[in-house]
Amino acid sequence: MARQVEVITLGTGAALPSLERFTAAYVVRDWAGNVILMDSGEGAQQRLRQAGISPTKVDFIVLTHGHGDHINGLPGLLGTMQLSGRKSRLTIIAPKYLAEPIRELINANKFEDQFPVNVIDVTGDEGSLTLSSWGRDRLVLSWFRACHSIEAYGYSLTWELGPRIAEPVEPSQARKLLEEGGSGLTSPRSFKLSYTGDTSPCDSVVKGASGANVLIHESTFDSSMKDEASKYGHSTSVGAAEDAVKANVGKLILSHISTRYEGYEALQLEQEARSVFPNSVLAWDLARFVANV
Amino acid sequence: MARQVEVITLGTGAALPSLERFTAAYVVRDWAGNVILMDSGEGAQQRLRQAGISPTKVDFIVLTHGHGDHINGLPGLLGTMQLSGRKSRLTIIAPKYLAEPIRELINANKFEDQFPVNVIDVTGDEGSLTLSSWGRDRLVLSWFRACHSIEAYGYSLTWELGPRIAEPVEPSQARKLLEEGGSGLTSPRSFKLSYTGDTSPCDSVVKGASGANVLIHESTFDSSMKDEASKYGHSTSVGAAEDAVKANVGKLILSHISTRYEGYEALQLEQEARSVFPNSVLAWDLARFVANV
Repeated sequence: MARQVEVITLGTGAALPSLERFTAAYVVRDWAGNVILMDSGEGAQQRLRQAGISPTKVDFIVLTHGHGDHINGLPGLLGTMQLSGRKSRLTIIAPKYLAEPIRELINANKFEDQFPVNVIDVTGDEGSLTLSSWGRDRLVLSWFRACHSIEAYGYSLTWELGPRIAEPVEPSQARKLLEEGGSGLTSPRSFKLSYTGDTSPCDSVVKGASGANVLIHESTFDSSMKDEASKYGHSTSVGAAEDAVKANVGKLILSHISTRYEGYEALQLEQEARSVFPNSVLAWDLARFVANV
Repeated sequence: MARQVEVITLGTGAALPSLERFTAAYVVRDWAGNVILMDSGEGAQQRLRQAGISPTKVDFIVLTHGHGDHINGLPGLLGTMQLSGRKSRLTIIAPKYLAEPIRELINANKFEDQFPVNVIDVTGDEGSLTLSSWGRDRLVLSWFRACHSIEAYGYSLTWELGPRIAEPVEPSQARKLLEEGGSGLTSPRSFKLSYTGDTSPCDSVVKGASGANVLIHESTFDSSMKDEASKYGHSTSVGAAEDAVKANVGKLILSHISTRYEGYEALQLEQEARSVFPNSVLAWDLARFVANV
């Protein structure tokens, strides 16, 4: 079975929604069935439906910071899970200052009468936890500090694949080979997807996204607005591309696009980024990016 | 100039959004330029844009009750007004238990640094206030109790038109005629639009909507689900039609449609309502109803 990771950009706008772009939300699915929602701007649940993914199938919600354009879709999404009869556990990972009001929201609406919810606090400069493990593989979430106008984090999802048998062998030999290791096995591999949330270009983002196969970096403005970007804790597409170069990533997805760029005007951001980091691509709402792991 | 009132159904779904229907929100515009948003479900601001109405142009937000599918779009809408540089006064009318958290939301986000906001408490069994007046005309909002699982209100918007000059006269005569009144003038007229929010069929709704030219009545279920409708404080389309008959309204718009009716399945609700009240019509998202006043 092909091992694939799919990212669907549900909301690629900045600050406020436009006709084309909802506010921040990204859903990630993998071949093992994990469904992770990163940020949850207003309308995230509608976009999930438009992407053909039931909102009740989300296992993990990962939030970068407390600005409305990244979280306003959360109450409705949780309400839908409740009304749809969800039973399975939901895990929400959020900065500590957000985790507390989220727990209040959960209690006030009695969501846990319907399905169990873990809310995990993110604090400090960095950290990680295993979201899921299966067979010889696991999915790890790590966080790093972003450089924004309020406390904000970026996240990396890393799929760590254990050794596989390199060449076909007799079934009776397979278990022995896997247990003993050695030259008959492939090396462990990994695939890393990083997401910055809102940030200016900065060292902690570069470190956190280091070596990522795919980096979703915010890119609110074009290069002529560098000062404004810096002032409000945002990035130009060139700034995003510079982070991508420093972090030595494989592919850069530019998102969190200001409403000032209507339609194809936003391609200016892609063009500018490519002059610095050629493998840059502009996100649109409901774009699908599929990678073989 | 034609005196027209326009209603655009921004969200016609119940409880949770579907691919076709967002949750409750309706925008009303009149010939005098008043823009009133009734309820504000998630995505109301996106639907406003889709309707060609800038979210910053809303003058009044009228909320029926505190369930998420009627209010989850409010924080994002206010945030957009703030970021868009709105300057003009916004008036929010809501049940008292909702008005308080709305004031906290406004304070926490410092919306009033950008534009003034009035939050008006709705309490008691009924009441009214003048939203706007111009020339010899005014727009009055009145509220009445709905019968739902929590404290909830319905609203009527009534345009009260003062007397007009019946036949063309010399300009020099016009002022005199208007000041003195009498047989040279038309009678005062009015146009009434009522909206129930969430409710079972009930007497206070019938009274509040009495004589309305247009009634938007919730119609969550078909007639086979009468018991479930009653249990949760909702209406079948037949129940809505029975209220329309009792209130002697001109036209019934059926909305707040359960997600169980996909696509044209919802026409069943319209058909059932018409057997009781012929001038019934099923709402779809972004439908426009225009009436001459």
